[in-house]
Amino acid sequence: MVYSVAVAGASGYAGGEVLRLLSAHPEFEVRTVTAHANAGQQLTAVHSHLRSYRGMVLQETTPEVLKGHDVVFLALPHGKSGALADELGDASLVVDCGADHRLVSASAWETFYKSEHHGSWPYGLPELVLASGAKQRENLVGVNRIAVPGCNVTAVSLGLAPGIRAGVIQPTDLVAVLAVGPSGAGKTLRTDLLASELLGSAHAYGVGGTHRHVPEIVQNLTGAGGEAVTVSFTPVLVPMARGILATSTARLQPGVSAADVRSAWELAYADEPFVELLPEGSFPAVSDTIGANTALIGLAVDEAAERVVTVTALDNLVKGTAGAAIQSTNIALGLPEQLGLSIDGVAP
Amino acid sequence: MVYSVAVAGASGYAGGEVLRLLSAHPEFEVRTVTAHANAGQQLTAVHSHLRSYRGMVLQETTPEVLKGHDVVFLALPHGKSGALADELGDASLVVDCGADHRLVSASAWETFYKSEHHGSWPYGLPELVLASGAKQRENLVGVNRIAVPGCNVTAVSLGLAPGIRAGVIQPTDLVAVLAVGPSGAGKTLRTDLLASELLGSAHAYGVGGTHRHVPEIVQNLTGAGGEAVTVSFTPVLVPMARGILATSTARLQPGVSAADVRSAWELAYADEPFVELLPEGSFPAVSDTIGANTALIGLAVDEAAERVVTVTALDNLVKGTAGAAIQSTNIALGLPEQLGLSIDGVAP
Amino acid sequence: MVYSVAVAGASGYAGGEVLRLLSAHPEFEVRTVTAHANAGQQLTAVHSHLRSYRGMVLQETTPEVLKGHDVVFLALPHGKSGALADELGDASLVVDCGADHRLVSASAWETFYKSEHHGSWPYGLPELVLASGAKQRENLVGVNRIAVPGCNVTAVSLGLAPGIRAGVIQPTDLVAVLAVGPSGAGKTLRTDLLASELLGSAHAYGVGGTHRHVPEIVQNLTGAGGEAVTVSFTPVLVPMARGILATSTARLQPGVSAADVRSAWELAYADEPFVELLPEGSFPAVSDTIGANTALIGLAVDEAAERVVTVTALDNLVKGTAGAAIQSTNIALGLPEQLGLSIDGVAP
Amino acid sequence: MVYSVAVAGASGYAGGEVLRLLSAHPEFEVRTVTAHANAGQQLTAVHSHLRSYRGMVLQETTPEVLKGHDVVFLALPHGKSGALADELGDASLVVDCGADHRLVSASAWETFYKSEHHGSWPYGLPELVLASGAKQRENLVGVNRIAVPGCNVTAVSLGLAPGIRAGVIQPTDLVAVLAVGPSGAGKTLRTDLLASELLGSAHAYGVGGTHRHVPEIVQNLTGAGGEAVTVSFTPVLVPMARGILATSTARLQPGVSAADVRSAWELAYADEPFVELLPEGSFPAVSDTIGANTALIGLAVDEAAERVVTVTALDNLVKGTAGAAIQSTNIALGLPEQLGLSIDGVAP
Repeated sequence: MVYSVAVAGASGYAGGEVLRLLSAHPEFEVRTVTAHANAGQQLTAVHSHLRSYRGMVLQETTPEVLKGHDVVFLALPHGKSGALADELGDASLVVDCGADHRLVSASAWETFYKSEHHGSWPYGLPELVLASGAKQRENLVGVNRIAVPGCNVTAVSLGLAPGIRAGVIQPTDLVAVLAVGPSGAGKTLRTDLLASELLGSAHAYGVGGTHRHVPEIVQNLTGAGGEAVTVSFTPVLVPMARGILATSTARLQPGVSAADVRSAWELAYADEPFVELLPEGSFPAVSDTIGANTALIGLAVDEAAERVVTVTALDNLVKGTAGAAIQSTNIALGLPEQLGLSIDGVAP
Repeated sequence: MVYSVAVAGASGYAGGEVLRLLSAHPEFEVRTVTAHANAGQQLTAVHSHLRSYRGMVLQETTPEVLKGHDVVFLALPHGKSGALADELGDASLVVDCGADHRLVSASAWETFYKSEHHGSWPYGLPELVLASGAKQRENLVGVNRIAVPGCNVTAVSLGLAPGIRAGVIQPTDLVAVLAVGPSGAGKTLRTDLLASELLGSAHAYGVGGTHRHVPEIVQNLTGAGGEAVTVSFTPVLVPMARGILATSTARLQPGVSAADVRSAWELAYADEPFVELLPEGSFPAVSDTIGANTALIGLAVDEAAERVVTVTALDNLVKGTAGAAIQSTNIALGLPEQLGLSIDGVAP
Repeated sequence: MVYSVAVAGASGYAGGEVLRLLSAHPEFEVRTVTAHANAGQQLTAVHSHLRSYRGMVLQETTPEVLKGHDVVFLALPHGKSGALADELGDASLVVDCGADHRLVSASAWETFYKSEHHGSWPYGLPELVLASGAKQRENLVGVNRIAVPGCNVTAVSLGLAPGIRAGVIQPTDLVAVLAVGPSGAGKTLRTDLLASELLGSAHAYGVGGTHRHVPEIVQNLTGAGGEAVTVSFTPVLVPMARGILATSTARLQPGVSAADVRSAWELAYADEPFVELLPEGSFPAVSDTIGANTALIGLAVDEAAERVVTVTALDNLVKGTAGAAIQSTNIALGLPEQLGLSIDGVAP
Repeated sequence: MVYSVAVAGASGYAGGEVLRLLSAHPEFEVRTVTAHANAGQQLTAVHSHLRSYRGMVLQETTPEVLKGHDVVFLALPHGKSGALADELGDASLVVDCGADHRLVSASAWETFYKSEHHGSWPYGLPELVLASGAKQRENLVGVNRIAVPGCNVTAVSLGLAPGIRAGVIQPTDLVAVLAVGPSGAGKTLRTDLLASELLGSAHAYGVGGTHRHVPEIVQNLTGAGGEAVTVSFTPVLVPMARGILATSTARLQPGVSAADVRSAWELAYADEPFVELLPEGSFPAVSDTIGANTALIGLAVDEAAERVVTVTALDNLVKGTAGAAIQSTNIALGLPEQLGLSIDGVAP
């Protein structure tokens, strides 16, 4: 069976990447692409790299246009997904690449997004370990709504959850600093996202706990360990178009050995196709993961600082967004989880 | 009076930057430049950007060639400065841009450099606050030996020392993650420093407390507060030729207000020409500091994470190396501290 | 049927890209990978992005190791392919990604490569128009030796051949200037290929007709028009890891209209899956083609300058090397030409 | 004497660079900075790298604010300089960094700018050789109006004028392709100038003779040789914040030797402080010139292609704009031409 697919918000970077991956997927057929300001244009006029979509035209993002597809991917500005999804009904699997349905806590949503909460959907991070011993994957089977995680959140959560789950690191006083590419901020016309400003430079943003990804990290890592989590989170914009390198550190639990630490991550990811713990002394590069649905993790124990340091690389648009969306969709529909997804990065 | 100057190790990036800055300094006259493999070549054959040195030829790095200058800058591989400096005598001011004379502790040196300790020289970070209430500047007046700090060390030390000195942050469990450009690693022919490898990518190195800059940070911050320091330090190589953006965080001391925190940094740097605390909510970009002897610091208090976050930008080759060398030399010789040093970055 | 494959010189950039593409190809199974200095290592130790090859070990590049595979891809330094291929026998299809068998003219080879000529093999640029009216594709059917073109050559040849074939531009006094990424120069440890040197910079090389790609361009374009060709060719290294943007210009034949010009290219590429003429007024970006076996061409007629200007974008490692190798192999083996090759770029 | 200075349009990249250079100039004192949308803000809020201007506030760009300064630099959108300059009177030296007063030909202006011509001012490219045997420098002494050249124009004109003046190359059928950084396009919020779009990519614009710099190149090179000029001009945007690498080629005049060619450029630039012909076989890198008022030229004769190839590197914001403005101002005022201008690039 081939599933009919629509992509709403297809003109942005996330929507474009969903389309790029769908084109290589044997069970999905993209029938409809929609946009707002670019409606009426050729898709290739907006995404000149998507040559396999030649001839396809962007339609308006309306419920009428999107209804009736087996799967609808939403890549919309936040606040736009909830009402639209309601109109699509239960027959379609709706996969939201935006933030609207990620947070379970209404108060966390309201604090960080200053708007009304839309409720939460099953969370599309299959490899996330849970306090119960299960993984989040189990919660995605057969669902008809999926909330795709934030890209930075995925990097920090995958990096730290195994240690919290195993009790080898402390869940409070986590510190994460991420080198991130500007595509994570979307195609927004902002001076600080201009090439002239970012080439040869780097700058932090959302410093001091104000970034909207903070409550989502807290939610994931609380879920992994069952205990309260605090995290200092600082993303740093650097001059690479895509990718995240997250350095996530945590206090070592007293009395835990380096071998115990490594075992926690090995146990969590040994059988995962898309998440890999690198051998001792190895740390990933962002380019290892570009274009691939891969997260690579390096791990070190700093005895002097009494901290565990994890370095996680992934492509913010693939494992951080569009790849996670398709992987979760595969699970929801009962398809092989790896179908249509490459694990080899485009490097150098 | 114009001082005669020699630069040893002039063919590397640090040596080249010392020469670039010396060319704009009204009281220094470069008489001699030396190198090892490149001896005999035109300086502009190695540093094609240093047009003002046209006609100058690189000589061998020997005591005979270097003797007799008022000031000798050493930009040599570590282990090479000590014996050479001994032969230059006390009449020359010797400024070591390398690591050999930075660490006071012989055991720290031996642990991290696996070689014999050469003793320590007055440390060239004038703005470093000391537990005594003084600044390191005072220890540089009239000296004839200067150890220039490591570039990453300067970024982390300037970022955290005021808070430790004032007692508003805890000196243990510091966490610093730095986005750094490859020029800090020198002109070494290593695969991971190739443009093909670094363009579009980022990777960490020296993860888990193994980087040689760790003991130097500990030394500086112990000196600032008089108490034991522990730090988790991770440098991340990113695709910008120069520059450092250091995100350095520390646990907030219980009961300290955000205003108290800010006051500590304001007090430390209010009168400094080269180190500036940015207004609340502002954070620096690396490009603000390129080519300039400037360190810019942004500061935030994360109440939820109970951490103070500082973001420090500087040019690793200027305030991180060559500019610090010349600033310290100005102090040692009794010249105006700012002489010959620009504070305006080359941006965009 | 699945074909057994070996890749010799698998540790370099070209070899790595062949492996990345082979991993996505349904009819090829990589059994053997070989290298020189890296023999004995895990492939993922050298190409950390090729996660699908976990566990595979690099063997020595010897005839014994390579014999017996259906297809052998050679990605070796020039001068190394000829003798090796002789020992592999006629039963294997040998695809040389290096320069050894590209040039038909022994004297051209000797002039530019200063070594003995090895003879020429069928040339792997299927879309190249020939003076006969055929395309080079026809010469690849059923062959057991393929010489993969140089990456810059592909960009300039595809950009200009249709106009020469159709007689709308003059074959002499061609001028081509290319912005190229450093991966085209391989993983060589050279100072000018260091990230510190190339970030924020650009420089030309092989200026004035000395580049080894010149005789190959001349060969292709002479073949397209049947007349003598002269070309001024200048590659400019710019800070992007991969990709080529070739601006190739030619004198307009007197009396030819802009519509005639456009028709020549439309006719040549209308049915090509991998080479596309963009609409009037559109010009390609390198990122449109990254990771894809796509060449995109923009075309303008400059009436005042009496020149036709073509701008061709492609990925030097895909359509410029590894993709061309696999596309040509598909043809040689009678497989669908597009099998296993994506046309969508990884962008942004 | 210290001259009072105002900079109008100080919030853009050109205005910012004028300010950076003025800060290092001993005879100029910046009293006034103006802007349009940013009026009322601190200058450092817009140009965070210009720390020496702390406390200075941007005023409105009006004649009242700008009047009464010895020198007024205009860095305004085109069409805005003429009327403003009229109101400033003859007592002020007005230096226009924009396009309004560069072209002598009203019809060329109207064809390329689709608006009314404002007349032309003395042209600020001192090293430009003229058919008369003089240089443009002579036309700048004592003037009170200066039109600063376009950055791309400067690169191509300096690269080719000596050969045209000397008659060793043909003035028709010139071909120039330039790798240029995005800062030349200013701080405009355009999708194609976003970091996500340009990182890892390159694309041409103004292809086919439509770029507004074409008539200005024609004007300069016609002036150098006294004969009609045609040029094919293609700028290619590449991922470096600043800088131009112009590959400019011309047909060799029949019978001219390579030595004659080289002599033409040597003769033109032997005594120039800011323009340098590199030795045979040497070609410049953009990074050699960053931050410096330097243009470096490499030269080759391609006998097979019968073309002379010149490669010119310069910083578009310095020798291409702000440095040229200050150099020309020095000449106009009778100050030493090199005053306040560095020739050493900031590299790596």
